[in-house]
Amino acid sequence: MILAFVGTAGSGKTTLTRSFGNYLGKNDYTVGYVNLDTGVMRLPYSPDVDVRDDVTAWDLMEEGFGPNGAIVESYDRLLPKVDEYAGKILKLDSELDYILIDTPGQMETFLFHDFGLMLMESLPDVLTVYLFSPEILRKPSDYCFVRFFGLIIDLRLGTTTLPALTKVDATDLDHHKKYLDDLEYLTARLKLESSTQGLLAHRLCSVLPELSPPTRVLYLSAVTGEGFEDLETLAYEHYCTCGDLT
Amino acid sequence: MILAFVGTAGSGKTTLTRSFGNYLGKNDYTVGYVNLDTGVMRLPYSPDVDVRDDVTAWDLMEEGFGPNGAIVESYDRLLPKVDEYAGKILKLDSELDYILIDTPGQMETFLFHDFGLMLMESLPDVLTVYLFSPEILRKPSDYCFVRFFGLIIDLRLGTTTLPALTKVDATDLDHHKKYLDDLEYLTARLKLESSTQGLLAHRLCSVLPELSPPTRVLYLSAVTGEGFEDLETLAYEHYCTCGDLT
Repeated sequence: MILAFVGTAGSGKTTLTRSFGNYLGKNDYTVGYVNLDTGVMRLPYSPDVDVRDDVTAWDLMEEGFGPNGAIVESYDRLLPKVDEYAGKILKLDSELDYILIDTPGQMETFLFHDFGLMLMESLPDVLTVYLFSPEILRKPSDYCFVRFFGLIIDLRLGTTTLPALTKVDATDLDHHKKYLDDLEYLTARLKLESSTQGLLAHRLCSVLPELSPPTRVLYLSAVTGEGFEDLETLAYEHYCTCGDLT
Repeated sequence: MILAFVGTAGSGKTTLTRSFGNYLGKNDYTVGYVNLDTGVMRLPYSPDVDVRDDVTAWDLMEEGFGPNGAIVESYDRLLPKVDEYAGKILKLDSELDYILIDTPGQMETFLFHDFGLMLMESLPDVLTVYLFSPEILRKPSDYCFVRFFGLIIDLRLGTTTLPALTKVDATDLDHHKKYLDDLEYLTARLKLESSTQGLLAHRLCSVLPELSPPTRVLYLSAVTGEGFEDLETLAYEHYCTCGDLT
């Protein structure tokens, strides 16, 4: 089974890759780790496949690129090797129970660059976990934003995508759950907002049930391990039933 | 009038800021430039407001941050100064005809960080131009992806957002226009795709007319100046009629 953790810088991809890997290991699964981030300095796990063996953002900055330019250039240079990387991951997948893919620090490097897109197209039935952290949820329309962001990641990568709130050990989880688990409540709440933004959010939320099956939101903590059993169950169901995650 | 150019690294924000500014200058408008990118090395225009006066990604990398960490940290450090920046931009706006805002190299730094969100909330009636380049449009579902990306930028920033294809001097423009201008054509084309991705794209495109007015897509070239008159007209209409860009 191949799981890819996708999310913005700071959403907890790397930490979760390690903790969920540890959890799987303790449950007697064999786990392989893939690092796709050319800009990361230290990893808390030992990657079996690592793009930094070919290129790092550091090398490119020494060549004179700025930080953003170096990151983009690093994936330009990796692009000719995308089949080689897909091959390595597939081999790992044939030998081990779980493959955990830790994606680039900046999510858009993955969603807007051919390296990420072509790699995902080459791998069978990847389950993508879209991680977002509580600090980006300030007002009702933000909950609508993350639901749609999950949907367009699914559209872009062509992989089943599970939205997952991270760092749930350090937030008012009940508050977030109210908006994330009950779409009708959220939609009704948005109806009360008279701003243009509220109106758009209300329209978007109203059509959400037509667009996708009512995908569950996961609630994860790399600190306490909360939600790991749910993620394991959903991953198992994904591979057995191919995509019905309601 | 305040225009913000938003898009991924490499979509042409900085180049367009300069060329569109030159175009406005030639048409006897006064123009102010704002740079919000802490990671840019050289700018082809002279910024009137520049976040690098306070912090650069370089300084932070010297402190030991990696490239992604340095970018995020730079906006954490700018956050307490967000009102000060809003004040500077508002002052500039009161003195000049157009203010052009060049946003962070990585789009998500702007969309997922409070600095960007709070700055946009503090400025009146910003018109956001969402730039995407032809290389990200490979298959029909990609056109659906950019339409929705524009919509969720609008949702996130709470500003009217115009989608704009860039670098149109160097691409098969007629091909892209067919998919971007005629939503019915795109929807019909997506219906032919039997993949799960195609099905989701078809559903998304089908609901698009209910979600937003039929916003025009702009076609821009920083090289030839194509589309600049259209952008000027739409900016003018935005400020006169407040948001009806059909």
